[in-house]
Amino acid sequence: MQDLLNKIDRLLKEKKFFEVKNIVKDENAADLAVLFDELFGEVFGEKTEFMILFRLLPKDLAAETFAQMKSDMQSHLIQMFSDKEIRDILDESFIDDTVDIIEEMPANVVSRILKNSTTGERKAINEILRYPKDSAGSIMTIEYVSLHKDMTVSEAFEKIRKVGVNKETIYTCYVTENRKLIGVITVKDLFMADEDDKIADIMETHIISVDTLEDKEIVGHMFRKYDFLALPVVDKDNRLVGIVTFDDAMDVIQDENTEDFSKMAAIAPNEESYFRTGIFKHAKSRIVWLLILMISATITQIITNRYEAAFAAVPLLVSFMPMIMDTGGNCGAQSSTLIIRGIALDEIHFSDFFKVVFKEFRISIIVSSVLAVVNGVRIYIMYQHKCDYPFMLALTIALSIIATVILSKVIGSMLPMLAKKCRLDPAIMATPLITTIVDCCSLFLYFNIATIVFSHIGIL
Amino acid sequence: MQDLLNKIDRLLKEKKFFEVKNIVKDENAADLAVLFDELFGEVFGEKTEFMILFRLLPKDLAAETFAQMKSDMQSHLIQMFSDKEIRDILDESFIDDTVDIIEEMPANVVSRILKNSTTGERKAINEILRYPKDSAGSIMTIEYVSLHKDMTVSEAFEKIRKVGVNKETIYTCYVTENRKLIGVITVKDLFMADEDDKIADIMETHIISVDTLEDKEIVGHMFRKYDFLALPVVDKDNRLVGIVTFDDAMDVIQDENTEDFSKMAAIAPNEESYFRTGIFKHAKSRIVWLLILMISATITQIITNRYEAAFAAVPLLVSFMPMIMDTGGNCGAQSSTLIIRGIALDEIHFSDFFKVVFKEFRISIIVSSVLAVVNGVRIYIMYQHKCDYPFMLALTIALSIIATVILSKVIGSMLPMLAKKCRLDPAIMATPLITTIVDCCSLFLYFNIATIVFSHIGIL
Repeated sequence: MQDLLNKIDRLLKEKKFFEVKNIVKDENAADLAVLFDELFGEVFGEKTEFMILFRLLPKDLAAETFAQMKSDMQSHLIQMFSDKEIRDILDESFIDDTVDIIEEMPANVVSRILKNSTTGERKAINEILRYPKDSAGSIMTIEYVSLHKDMTVSEAFEKIRKVGVNKETIYTCYVTENRKLIGVITVKDLFMADEDDKIADIMETHIISVDTLEDKEIVGHMFRKYDFLALPVVDKDNRLVGIVTFDDAMDVIQDENTEDFSKMAAIAPNEESYFRTGIFKHAKSRIVWLLILMISATITQIITNRYEAAFAAVPLLVSFMPMIMDTGGNCGAQSSTLIIRGIALDEIHFSDFFKVVFKEFRISIIVSSVLAVVNGVRIYIMYQHKCDYPFMLALTIALSIIATVILSKVIGSMLPMLAKKCRLDPAIMATPLITTIVDCCSLFLYFNIATIVFSHIGIL
Repeated sequence: MQDLLNKIDRLLKEKKFFEVKNIVKDENAADLAVLFDELFGEVFGEKTEFMILFRLLPKDLAAETFAQMKSDMQSHLIQMFSDKEIRDILDESFIDDTVDIIEEMPANVVSRILKNSTTGERKAINEILRYPKDSAGSIMTIEYVSLHKDMTVSEAFEKIRKVGVNKETIYTCYVTENRKLIGVITVKDLFMADEDDKIADIMETHIISVDTLEDKEIVGHMFRKYDFLALPVVDKDNRLVGIVTFDDAMDVIQDENTEDFSKMAAIAPNEESYFRTGIFKHAKSRIVWLLILMISATITQIITNRYEAAFAAVPLLVSFMPMIMDTGGNCGAQSSTLIIRGIALDEIHFSDFFKVVFKEFRISIIVSSVLAVVNGVRIYIMYQHKCDYPFMLALTIALSIIATVILSKVIGSMLPMLAKKCRLDPAIMATPLITTIVDCCSLFLYFNIATIVFSHIGIL
């Protein structure tokens, strides 16, 4: 990649455009998009070579490369395009890619795009744009191959040949009657059939489709489950309005994962990549949760305040606070992460509530016993000559660990399911929030256990 | 789904097998696999109806459904199959699905499968099995359509028709010469060409392929980037040995994500689903990291011990420990999660080290200033009548927050990149480990700042 980059850079500077043209025409659009990005880096606005390079691409490759570029690059290019160039790009683009581009552009760029599109394109773009942000309708394309049930296989092939070049996928075709979806047939099925077979006789009539308003996350699940190349999108009356293709579904799955990772680390999700987000935007997306968590830590602070007598009498107790808190946080994080992931993969549902909590309870008994024994022994050995009550200290810590682990695993498993039930995203019930809640509870348990143990031997 | 389940259950009990047969033959294999799973739940071993139901499926659908089942169900079924049934399933299955099944089965089941496969199948299975666990070779299939460069388009169509039924995808065909991969052509290209065109003239020769030993994670990246339906897998001499199809790539992407979620919550990754994993296995996969983190918390404990004088003089300092620790942990988690995700998506590389650390440094200045001001004011107001030195307390906390946030964001961004550089999985440098490291540093800073501030006014 770096070699190609240097070569093209050099050839452009030497104005050997013909050679550049010959090199780039064989490249893949995804690679070219990366190349444009790398070539001009963050200061590309000041250079003009990328405009020359873009104009050296064959029309179809130019449109494909354009669709794969980052949105700031696209917006920059459009502003430098002539109206004719915009029309050429639109001609060669799939409608769903155009919609993706439009959604990211500033208003003046959008109006230039719409001005240069045909009436048909404009209608199609508006059609998709009117669906809610995360719906199946918003990620679909309206360019599919539709067949008629009375066609023969060879007529179907003819139609695919004729209309296929402009369709995003030709491998799954849809049979409609009065715009209603009545069958699905793949090109493979067509190949395996006889030339004179009627479509009606060989099409699949047990159709799996999604509603235009279905959450795109569900669409992602369906692609994972069924391994489809494309999924038909229908309206309330079962009229076919578009299809979602597997590459868009893959993007949805990846975006959902990234969003979950962000939320689980208490960051407001952001659709731009790390480097393309400015530091103020980064700061803003992190501050909100940090403030909420910090203020809620006030409760922990008040609880700790109430046990001043305990750590005044046994100052050693303070030094075990971090370990108790961290263990609770980590245990809660483990449970909540597994449950959040299980919910995201559609493996765990609210109906499993008691099954899950009971399972986590049993796991926490095993985990806490091991941790309690290992730590009890470690503390007893460490403090047997340094402190007057090594056994009581070890006992306090061991009991606190058991209580903390059980509590944190149970809380950690319950909250994501409850969030789902309340129609909140389970991912917010992840490590940061769980840690804060668990800290509060674990310190309360710890100081109470310590008070009981040490008052038993008359120290408190 | 539940309706269908009840209906089939009832019909089976009434022995109306013909009706059942008619219902299930139109269902999708993925749905049937779920149905088998639900129908017999965790105690399916005791029922025999599922064997009857399985035998009511048409051969090809039975094989497809079998491939989609969970591995314990598969193993159970195989043990009840006759040799002929095993042969039928193998005949109808794709080799890569068979390999997936074999990898999960106990030895006695594997030997029954191999005994009932043809010499060709056995050779193909062993071919795939010998590639390392996470390599491209291990997830490929060897069933692809290969064409000759001198064929015409219509000859190519004829070949696809003849061999296609047994191939996992027919939509991308591969042109080979002496087993070397010299071109790729899609069925769409074939449709758009003339019947007499030579394959050599219309095939794509700028081929994107992967090596058999390439990490499957890279294969997942390539599918995301290029939106391919299939990717050719070649050996060192550019000989075509197989293809990876998009559905397997989707599984890889999802598995990698699940693995990252687990590792980031300090859980040893586990390929089984939550419910299918026993409580002892769950406990085992969580205990190791908890123990490591707990023992490392000893350092924090020793540090805290050294500042006994500080919190003996100003006991209020203890109650702010949780807030300082949690804020550090949360800030570190935010940075490390973003960097880990950036690395996983191939957006952040080690060469960006200083760029990333500098960016996080600047972000941390903004974030820490806001948090410090909000908390400083809050603490001053809360304690102005309750304590003799509210301003000094607020100042100590505010300064500690600034130091902690900057430190944790810088550490949180550095460690994942360093892990990557050392060929470790960046995901282990996530919340739990970062929290432990940051706790240690933040308490050290906190107590030092407190000592300086309070000794300034003569309290310490």
